Parts: sequence; C-alpha cells; structure tokens
Amino acid sequence: MKSYIKHSEWQVVEEGFVPDYNRISESLFSIGNGHTGQRANFEETYSGDSLRGNYLAGVYYPDKTRVGWWKNGYPEYFAKILNAANWIGLRIRLDEEELDLAKAKVDDFTRILDMRTALLTRRFKATLPSGKKVEVVVERFLSIADKEIGAIRYRLKSINFAGKLGLCSYIDGDIVNEDSNYDEKFWIETDKDTTPEQAFLCMETKKTSFFVCHGTETRLHLNGAKVDVARHPYNDEKFVANTFELSLVAGDELCIEKYMAVNTSLYQPKDALMGHVKAKLAQAIEEGFDQLYEAHSQKWKTRWETADIMIKGDVAAQQGIRFNIFQLMQTYSGDDERLNIGPKGFTGEKYGGVTYWDTEAYCLPFFMATAPQVVAKNLLLYRHKHLQKAIENGEKLGFNGGAALYPMVTINGEECHNEWEITFEEIHRNGAIAYAIYNYINYTGDIDYLAPYGFEVLLGISRFWAQRVNWSEGKNAYVMLGVTGPNEYENNVNNNFHTNRMAVWTMRYTLDVIDFVKKEHPYLYSELTRKWAFNEQAETDQWRDIIENMHFPYDAKRGIFLQQDGFLDKEIIPADELDPAERPIHQNWSWDRILRSCYIKQADTLQSFYWFRHEFDKESLRRHFDFYEPITVHESSLSSCIHAILAARIGREEKAYEMYLRTARLDLDDYNNDTKDGLHITSMGGTWLAFVETFGGMDVKDGRLVLNPFLPQSWEAFSFRINFRGAHLEIRMSEDLKVINHSDQSIELMVWDGVITLEGNSNIALARKSIMS
Amino acid sequence: MKSYIKHSEWQVVEEGFVPDYNRISESLFSIGNGHTGQRANFEETYSGDSLRGNYLAGVYYPDKTRVGWWKNGYPEYFAKILNAANWIGLRIRLDEEELDLAKAKVDDFTRILDMRTALLTRRFKATLPSGKKVEVVVERFLSIADKEIGAIRYRLKSINFAGKLGLCSYIDGDIVNEDSNYDEKFWIETDKDTTPEQAFLCMETKKTSFFVCHGTETRLHLNGAKVDVARHPYNDEKFVANTFELSLVAGDELCIEKYMAVNTSLYQPKDALMGHVKAKLAQAIEEGFDQLYEAHSQKWKTRWETADIMIKGDVAAQQGIRFNIFQLMQTYSGDDERLNIGPKGFTGEKYGGVTYWDTEAYCLPFFMATAPQVVAKNLLLYRHKHLQKAIENGEKLGFNGGAALYPMVTINGEECHNEWEITFEEIHRNGAIAYAIYNYINYTGDIDYLAPYGFEVLLGISRFWAQRVNWSEGKNAYVMLGVTGPNEYENNVNNNFHTNRMAVWTMRYTLDVIDFVKKEHPYLYSELTRKWAFNEQAETDQWRDIIENMHFPYDAKRGIFLQQDGFLDKEIIPADELDPAERPIHQNWSWDRILRSCYIKQADTLQSFYWFRHEFDKESLRRHFDFYEPITVHESSLSSCIHAILAARIGREEKAYEMYLRTARLDLDDYNNDTKDGLHITSMGGTWLAFVETFGGMDVKDGRLVLNPFLPQSWEAFSFRINFRGAHLEIRMSEDLKVINHSDQSIELMVWDGVITLEGNSNIALARKSIMS
Repeated sequence: MKSYIKHSEWQVVEEGFVPDYNRISESLFSIGNGHTGQRANFEETYSGDSLRGNYLAGVYYPDKTRVGWWKNGYPEYFAKILNAANWIGLRIRLDEEELDLAKAKVDDFTRILDMRTALLTRRFKATLPSGKKVEVVVERFLSIADKEIGAIRYRLKSINFAGKLGLCSYIDGDIVNEDSNYDEKFWIETDKDTTPEQAFLCMETKKTSFFVCHGTETRLHLNGAKVDVARHPYNDEKFVANTFELSLVAGDELCIEKYMAVNTSLYQPKDALMGHVKAKLAQAIEEGFDQLYEAHSQKWKTRWETADIMIKGDVAAQQGIRFNIFQLMQTYSGDDERLNIGPKGFTGEKYGGVTYWDTEAYCLPFFMATAPQVVAKNLLLYRHKHLQKAIENGEKLGFNGGAALYPMVTINGEECHNEWEITFEEIHRNGAIAYAIYNYINYTGDIDYLAPYGFEVLLGISRFWAQRVNWSEGKNAYVMLGVTGPNEYENNVNNNFHTNRMAVWTMRYTLDVIDFVKKEHPYLYSELTRKWAFNEQAETDQWRDIIENMHFPYDAKRGIFLQQDGFLDKEIIPADELDPAERPIHQNWSWDRILRSCYIKQADTLQSFYWFRHEFDKESLRRHFDFYEPITVHESSLSSCIHAILAARIGREEKAYEMYLRTARLDLDDYNNDTKDGLHITSMGGTWLAFVETFGGMDVKDGRLVLNPFLPQSWEAFSFRINFRGAHLEIRMSEDLKVINHSDQSIELMVWDGVITLEGNSNIALARKSIMS
Repeated sequence: MKSYIKHSEWQVVEEGFVPDYNRISESLFSIGNGHTGQRANFEETYSGDSLRGNYLAGVYYPDKTRVGWWKNGYPEYFAKILNAANWIGLRIRLDEEELDLAKAKVDDFTRILDMRTALLTRRFKATLPSGKKVEVVVERFLSIADKEIGAIRYRLKSINFAGKLGLCSYIDGDIVNEDSNYDEKFWIETDKDTTPEQAFLCMETKKTSFFVCHGTETRLHLNGAKVDVARHPYNDEKFVANTFELSLVAGDELCIEKYMAVNTSLYQPKDALMGHVKAKLAQAIEEGFDQLYEAHSQKWKTRWETADIMIKGDVAAQQGIRFNIFQLMQTYSGDDERLNIGPKGFTGEKYGGVTYWDTEAYCLPFFMATAPQVVAKNLLLYRHKHLQKAIENGEKLGFNGGAALYPMVTINGEECHNEWEITFEEIHRNGAIAYAIYNYINYTGDIDYLAPYGFEVLLGISRFWAQRVNWSEGKNAYVMLGVTGPNEYENNVNNNFHTNRMAVWTMRYTLDVIDFVKKEHPYLYSELTRKWAFNEQAETDQWRDIIENMHFPYDAKRGIFLQQDGFLDKEIIPADELDPAERPIHQNWSWDRILRSCYIKQADTLQSFYWFRHEFDKESLRRHFDFYEPITVHESSLSSCIHAILAARIGREEKAYEMYLRTARLDLDDYNNDTKDGLHITSMGGTWLAFVETFGGMDVKDGRLVLNPFLPQSWEAFSFRINFRGAHLEIRMSEDLKVINHSDQSIELMVWDGVITLEGNSNIALARKSIMS
C-alpha cells in the first residue's frame, strides 16, 4: 500500500522522483491504444531500476514450459505476448556527459497521465554531476485515431549549459522478456533501413514467425525554428538509430519530435511491412504532432461520452473509477476478434498477456455497456473461433465426441498454463464461457448470435460436462470429482458447488438454446446437428438426467450449500481473527497450510449467487454471504468486486462500500504491493461492474434494464453512462435520481421495482429510495 | 518388456551387441562397492547412444528447482548425486583409425556380470571400416575389499593388424548431468598431476564444495612381457591422460592394466586428498590386478554366505532373486551413517540418487536380516541425525514446538522435491520412519536404541501428527485433511486411511516407548524431557484423545476401510477390464483422468494391512485385498512385492507367485521400459522382502522368528539365509522343510504355528505343510 499518487479527477499525478517507485509508476502511467501499449519508461537513458516494456497485441511466443515433474496432458509452452522493440529511445549527451536521471540531481519532477486524452507528460529539471542544468518537458501518446502511430515531443531547455549536444534517437530490438523461462531471446532481426532522419527495424519472433516493423523519424527545432545539424544514421545488430549533433547556449530550447509507425504481419504481408510502415510514417509526419494529437484526443472524447463515471465529493474515488475505465479502454478496442485482454494488458509481463476466464467473467459487461455491440461480440467470437482447439484440449485429457474444454490460459486456443490443479481442474472456466453467451444476449438482445455461433460452443461445453461427471453409487447422484473452483486456495476437491452449478446451468441453457435454434432456424439446426454428429435425443436425455440428479453439497443445519464435499471438516475461524502480520496468507503461509485452511481467495460459492441471482432468494444469499464472506481473504484482485455487489443486494451498504474501495484504487495505491509488475487490467472490469451493480443496482431482467441505485454516505453524487439496446443513458444519483436518455431510442426501465418508460432524448427524476431490505 | 538377457544362475549375460539396448545393459551390468559405482560403459570410445555414469556416494549438488509457479514452502533445490569423473577411458587408435564399436563390425560380443564376485567381463571381435581386426577381452571391478580401488584389465589381440597402436588412457572430469535443470556443469577443476604412467585429477563440486580426487596408473604388457614404449602425459581442462604408442603385428596381444584410486573430502582433508590417492594407488599397483581381485572376491563370498537365496528348478527366478540381492549389496555397505540408498543406486541419474521412504519401507529389512546389525542401525541413525532438519522442515510449513516432518526426498535432511502434492502432503513417510524404529527393534531386539535415539525421533513425529490433525465438528472426530497416500494416483485427499493409521500407530508406539524409557532410563528421560520441552501430561493426553477419536473412512456394506473420504464416489471398474493398449495408465492417460479414476498405483490401504498384520484378522485382509487389488495397477515398482506377501497370507499361492514374478525380474526383463535410466534398487529390497515373507512366510512376533514357508508349484526347492539375533539360519524348502543353524547361538522358532527350539550348529527337518487357509 502506497499513496504517493496525487488525487485528481482526471489525471494521474506523481510529484517528485522516487527511484524506488519507478517500476510502479512505469505501470501506472502506461499508455496504449488496444493494439500497442507501453510502460511509462523514460525516453532518455535511465540506468536505475526499470522494466522497459513495449507490447504488440497478438504477437506472442510459446515459451517452453518450465516444470519440475512432467505429467501427461501438460501443455508444452506458456504463451507470452512479447516485450518488443523499444522505439522511444533518446540518448542525450551534453558534451561527453549523458543525461541519466539515475545519476543527476532531479528537481521539480512531475509525471502526469491525462486520462481524458491519454497523454503522458513528464517534466523535470536535471543537474548533471558536472553542474550542467537542463529543464525537460516530454509529451507522448499512442494514437487511438490511427493505431499504427505514436509520437513524442521532447523539449529540452539549457539552463546553464553551453556546448555540444549529442542525440541518438534509436529503436532497440534486442529485447529480453524478464520472465523468459530459459533466459532465451525471442526476436530475430530480419531487415532494417536508415536515412539521416529515419530508421526502420524489422524483426521476427522465433517459432511463431510474427513479423513486426517499427519506423521512426526524428525532427529537431531549436528555439522554435528548424535547425540544420550534423546527422548520421547508425546501425547495429537489432538496433537502428539517427544521431545528431548541435551546439547549445544557455537559454536555448531544443524540441525533439519523434514519430513512430508500427505494424505487424497480423495486418500486412510480411514483405510489404516495411513499405507500409514507411508510408504510414510519412503520413504521420505530414500531419505533425499537434494534428495527430488532436485526432487522438477527439476520439478519446467520444470514448468517454459513453463510458464515464462521475463521483462528486470524493476525489480519490473519482480518480479511482476513471483510472479503471481508462485502462480498460486503452487495453482493448474490440476491432479484431483475434485479440483479447491479458490480466496485465500492455503494462507488464506477468501472466504473459494471455487470456483467462477474467475476460468473460469480469471484462465483458464493461464492453457490452460502454462500447459498440461489435466489441463485446468480438470477445465472444474469440472463443467461438477456438472451439476446435477446445475440443482438442479435451481430447488430450481423455474426453471425446466433441466435448470442449476451453483452456485456462490461452492465446491461440491451446492451453498454455502448466499446473495440473489449474489446467486440468479449474474447469468452471468452461461454464464462464457459456455464461458469457447468455450474458451477452441477455444484455444486448442479440439473439441472432445463437444459431451461427452460440449453439455450437454451448453444445461442446455441455458435452464436456456430461462426460466430466460420473454416477456415485454411494450418493445416488451425479458427482464431479477432482476440481478446483474459483477459490484457488483449494485444489482437487470433489463436488465444488459452483462448478456443479455451472455444469447444470450450462446444460439447461443449452437445452433452451436448442429449442430456440430448432424452432427459429430449422435448416441451420439440421446442418449443425450433422456437423457435430449430435444425437439430440440421447444426449439431451443424458443432460436432463444429470440436471435432475446432480449432487450439491449442503449443510441442513446452516441451510447453506457447501463449497465442496467435506468443507465442514475444516476449522472455521473468521479471517479477521488472523494475525494481521500473517496477511496476505499467500505471502506468509505455506501452500500446505493454505490448502487445509478454510480461507477463500475469491468468491466461489458466492460466484454462483452473483451470476444466478434470480434463482436464490435474498434470505438464502444473506445466509451464504454471512457464512462465506467472513472466511474470504480477498487475495485475488477479482474478489472484492463480487462481494461489493452481493453486499449491496442484501442491503449491507457499508460492507458494499468497503469492498468497492478495495478494488477501485487497487493499483493507484499499490494495495497488494505488486503494481510494479503491471496493472490488474481484468480486475478493472470487475471494478466497473462493482460500481454499476453496487451503486447503480443495475441488472437486466426479462429484457428490461433494472436500476436500484444507492448513494454512499460519503459521496455527494455520482453518475454513470451506459448503452442499452440502442439507448444511451446517463444515470445521475444525488438528492434524487435522474435518468437521462441521450439517444432517440425510447426505453422501458425498472427502477426500484417500478416500471418507467423513457422516451428518446428525455429524462426523468425520481425521489431517492434506500435499497435497505 | 525385453528378454535378451540370458538366464544363468550366477551371471547376467548379454550375447550379441544391440546398440538400441546399450543404455539398458549399461544399467544392468553396473558395478559398485557402496562408496562408488558406475554404469557398464565401454572403456574405449563409443560414439553411439550411451549414458556415461560414475557416481560417488554422498557427493551431491543442490540443483536449483525448476518449477512453473512457485508456492510458499517449496524447497529451493533438488539434490543430485553427481555424475563424476570418468576414469575408465581408453582411446585406442590403430594407425589413424579409432576403435569405436558404433563404427565397427562387431562379432562374438558378450557382456557378463558375475554376481558371485562382481566382476564385469566383456568380449568382442571388432572389424574396423578399413578391415583391421582385433579381439578384445575386458575385466573390470570396483573393490569391496578396499572401497577406494578399481581396476581394469583390457586385453587386445591383433588378428590381422600390423602398425602403430596409439593409446590414450584418461580421466575425464568435464562431466554433465543429463538431468541438470539448467544445463549447468557442476564440477570445477582444482588440481591435477601427471607422470608418464600416472594421472591425477582433483575436482570440486560447485556450491557444496565436495572435493574428489581420482588417480590412475596405466601399465602395458605385450605378449605377456612388460614393454618399453613411447609414453607422454597429456593435460587439458578437467582432463588428464597418459598416452602410449607402440607397434603391433598380427597375433600380438596387448594387455592394458588400468588401476584407479579415488577418495573424497568426506574422508580426507581436501589438501591431503591427492597425496592420499597417490599412496593408495601405489599400494594397489604393488598388489596387482590378480591379488586385488582375490581380496575383492573373497569379501563377496562372505557377503553371499549370509545373504544368498537359492531357487532350484527355475533358472530365471534364480537369476532374478540373486540379481536383486547382488545390486542391493553393491549399493549400500552400511559403514557410514551419512550415506543412504537412492532409488537407482549408482546406476543412473533419475531421482537424483537421494533418499526416499523406500529405504525404511523396503530396504531396511534386507539389511537387518543379511548384514551385521550396525548396517541397519546406520540407516536409522541417518534419520536421527536429520531430526533437527525435519523440525525445520515442519516449521517451513507452519508447524512448531518440535514437530518433525521428515522430507519426502533428501540427501542432507532438507526437503528437496518440488511438487506440493508430494512434499507437503505425502506425509505417511513420517510414519514409515517411525515404523522403521519399531521394525528394527522388533527384529534385532536392540532395545538399547530407544532411549538415546529412537525416543526423540518418535517424539518429533508424534508431535507432527498431533498438529496435523484437526477436530471436525461434522464428523465428531479428528480428521487429517489434504494428504497424498502411498497411492500417488490420488492427491490432496482427506482422511487417507493409511496415513491416519500411521499417525495413530506412531502416537501409540511413542506412548509405549515413553513408558519404557521412563522406567528403564529415568535419568536420560528427564534430560530428554527438558531438552525437548516435552510436557508429558498435556501432550500424551492429546495423543490419547486423537488415538481414540480418529476418523477412519469405512464402508459398512462392504466391511472395508476406504482409502480416503468419498472413495466410493468413484466408478469402480477392475483394472483387467482396461484396454491393454492403455496400460500403463501413467504413460497413456492424462493426469486428470488418473486422479479421478479408482486406480491405485501401489499398496495404500493394504500397506497398513501389510505392516499391521497382527491388528487385522485374515477375513478382514481377504475383504480388503479383494476390493483393492483388482483396482491396483501396480505401476510403482514397489507395489507387487507387498501384494505378493498379502496374497500369501490369505493363501492365494498363485496370486502371490504372479505378484512375486513381477518384481523379481523387473529390471532384467526391462518390464517397465525404463531400465535404461537405471535399476530400481530400492524395489529390490521389496523383492527380497517378498521372497522371504511370501515363500518363507517370515515374520517376527513377540521376539520370536516365525516361518510359514510354501513352495510354488513350479520350483523344486528354495533356500534362504538370514541372521536373527545372533543366529545364522539357512531355511531350505523342498519336499520337506529344513532349518539349519550355522551359528553357535540357539534359537526358538515358530514354524507353521508350532514352536521349535534349534540349538547352535544343529538343524531340523519338518514335513511340508501348505499355508492354504
């Protein structure tokens, strides 16, 4: 936990340079445009501690698995979105002395990330060991108006220096992933070109053969005027640069503009790549820094119009929620169904930038509600495209007949995690992928998704569940053995309630979907039946039998479903009785002790209560919440969001607010002491969800948007904006509740259990009502 | 499964050279003397597939753990007995052509390992590509009369070659472990020396700083006479050699004698090491090959006198049992309590040559019965010496107050395996270490072991069990959660019957031992009580409570204890209904499928029935055997021995014989297709056990040796020899049973339920009786 970030409604601000926090700030001030992203590294040389990070969506390497003892079925690699060429580099020499903040005295250091426009600004005064003083202001952005463009404006003013300034503006492709399993380098140089002001570097990834080309042009102005200086290109292995030399006197201001264009073989044929990048760079130069920035910030303005959340009366909370929304939008733009959302986005290497169930469970709702429908649809299509791989993944474990097990971790549809207790057992993820289809259709009403896409994914997943259970003579019921639930502090348990629940729910939903597709798209249905060798009668009979006879561990005395068989054999001691010095337990306890304890990492049984709210009454939710929440240690960044929402549902406003706060400023305050590794991007989807469902009480029932807002005592007001089935709504909560329809589309809402019809471009105000129940 | 080894009563014989089998034969023909051992590599260059392996007991390296995701409590390294300098090397050039069996035509190839004297002999005729023909006979042994000495006699006869023979006799220290986790080399050269006929190489292990010195002298005779030839020493990095050149004509016979001396810093100060080795080598030279071999084979004769098992009427079975006994004797001599027995002995790298519970459970009985008492005692002292480390190991997992958890895998007392499901959970090993104390005292009667050694080990282990259980409200009993039993095809189960059984048994035995020590050694007892802060009343009360209230999963319908909670939720399908193509399942099924299946790797519940035979009646054993054995796949080399014994106990002679056969020729017939990695040394202890307890029906009850022999139908007779409390007995079973007392010590025996007293140097014959019951 740290609190050096200044509170500000629209900005992330660091004042004063603390080298120990540099990695944290590099994560926090990251910028990205959905296709490329980078940590907030310094342009000039920095010899202190830093993780230089530049990432390109979809460009990965299958790093050979590192494991002590191999087990059959293990995936052979862990895919990694690669740390790619560093194009921002500027080496600056004042006479023979290099500008390096690790070696200079640094004053008036400020780093600002403007979330409105995704502009990263850095200012500082540096006094070099020899006494030379300069003042620097740098601005940098990665354009969302043109995803191939980035630009830097680096203004250096000499305070007392007179002499030669040497500049080397470079692209460095000799990059190592810090998390490489065998200290291997993953990039090969394939081509390069330099002119006096331009440099191009083409690289290829080993094994996967992705081709990437970066090009830069560096332009210099002295005191506002173009200067004619000595210029020399420079090449080395995996390194291209333009060098410049000029004379400065005190008071001179040198402005270095560096323009970057980048593309990859995902979008251009490899042979055309450098030509394409050259043309793109020429276009960027033509437009110039200000015009590029203008287009970029206009686009950001549009993004915020449908996504902003306003909180009045609490700047920290306001900054927190905007930071979460901002980073989600920087990470995923949804214009390419081959891409997805890594737990750290473009802000670090941890988790390899690959896809987890986080996407479906925590991120999808944000994109459904704040972006065009195609964005959420592309997240679904990503899994649809991987169906065959999911079937193959199932086959590797011994399933057959088209049973699909989606991987726990993937980039291309193949499993690439390497712990059996996760990959083989944490199969509730399969349910999350099925649930996302339901969730998407429930929210968007896009029922047309089902026949061509949704049905076959659901079929594959239901087939998996049907094979994954077995009949227990002893229990006279179907059981599901050897699983790991969302609570990863248990492994290889039997009859995890949530997993069994997801299985039964999936099969039931699939039966509904079959009825729908059969009725509405009979021709396609018969085609699909043939394609998948679907024996409807036999298979659906089996599913119905499982639905009716699934075992759910239950404690009659307490009236609660148990997280798994035998859960009550554990010693149940509330987490707040633990020694605070031993928290978080995952950093202080042995795995042995954690596994045997009752402590829960994140919502597990309660995850079912979150998703299936309409199947459990409030009394039941209250009983389960009161049993499970006190033994939940919330050591996953994905835990408190769900608990905030559930607390709100049972009227525990204070608990809801407490849980919400834990997720909202997780990274800004470095709550878990790990922001240095990158931001918790997918958890940010959970934060958004927590906001709209906790404070907005948002839900969708029978195709109708439901709102049950409540205003925490410490806030004066809040508002949030969402798209819902063509309507664009703003929900403002203060003394009263105001719902504004910014679109032409009329809409019927249910607010505090009352039905309201809101015409296009109208609004309605309602007296405030508590949700206490 | 292969069967290229010729059957022979006292020899292991390979006829004809099959390069594909070379690694297997290198394992099978391994030689060792308890301090050093080596695979049966060729002396001359061999460019084909081979694992060159030379190992020195106790000389290990802590190889950094390789793991995908770290978990708290993981050990940082996996210790490995290192592959050490290769001293046997002889490069032989005929003119410019090298003798290399991978490149020559090979005729009349024979490899023979004489188990009576541990002499490795190899013969072959080789025709080089140019047509040069030679005939070679090589003999090699590692002396058990002097553990620092080895010798080779390499006789090369020219059939048609006339020209220059070049010989390079070398010690190569530039050795890599094939199983190095990060392809690292573990040895550093520290010193070397060469004379025209001698070469010395001193090496140090990285990190652990063991020092090792090898010295060799190479002597040449031509047609029986010493020859004066050109001789040159030669040095390189980690390499020392003597080179020789001489002229041969067809019919000449060159005899190369290579003598080796070796020692390590375990026995000599590092600075004195080379001097010591030089002196030792001089002594060996003085004695000469024949005299060294004579001393060596005399010692082997003595070893066999107390250990041999004779089977008449079945050469394959005879060879099998002798091979097992022979390899056990080669691996462990029991003269140094710092040493132990690795699963592969000195025959390969797998499992790192480090210590598992195999020692206590499978090897101890062999050494108790066939070697001087000090040998078995040293195996126990090995663990006693590691008590403090076992307590620290417990502390790393969160236990305290002197609770000792002995490691699953160790060389120096520290845990060095890296799977949580094994190191944290397979804790029944702690019980095996306690049981070994009981077993040793029960067999040897050495009750004096208890007060100074046994008591504190038992105290530490009982304290561990007391902390490892917890009270279950639901079951109203103590439970033990999150364990892995001997059946490693289950992980993280609750209430494994065998583990719970071991826990209760240990505490009960510890209570008995406390009573004994308190009564017989009151002063020492009070000292120990203080040393270990033992609160006798409170702690033993707690143990008694646990003993009385431990939960044991039980199925009343079948009248059987269940392997673990919920075992009957599994689908129970006998293993013989599995597709043979899918056996062994661990090579064909995913780990996921194995874990969820009912299949058992090795005796688990039945391990308790094996150890605690006096606590279960035969009917109960029969029920459990009939439930568990059919679902046991015996995919551990330690499985069939226990099942053979249990089958015999319930009179299933055929089953017993079948199970015995699976263990007896496991390596000779490469049953599991893994002999190339090394021999299953610890399983050989199980084979011996299976023999004496299955066919001998041997047991010890109330301090009295019990025999219930039966002769399998296919054998004409068998005999075995054991030491028992000072008596040296030979048990001969054929038409009748004859027990011969070869010692002065009289002994009271129970044979087929009748008590017999056998005076010193007498014998008794009894009519044969079946054990069918």
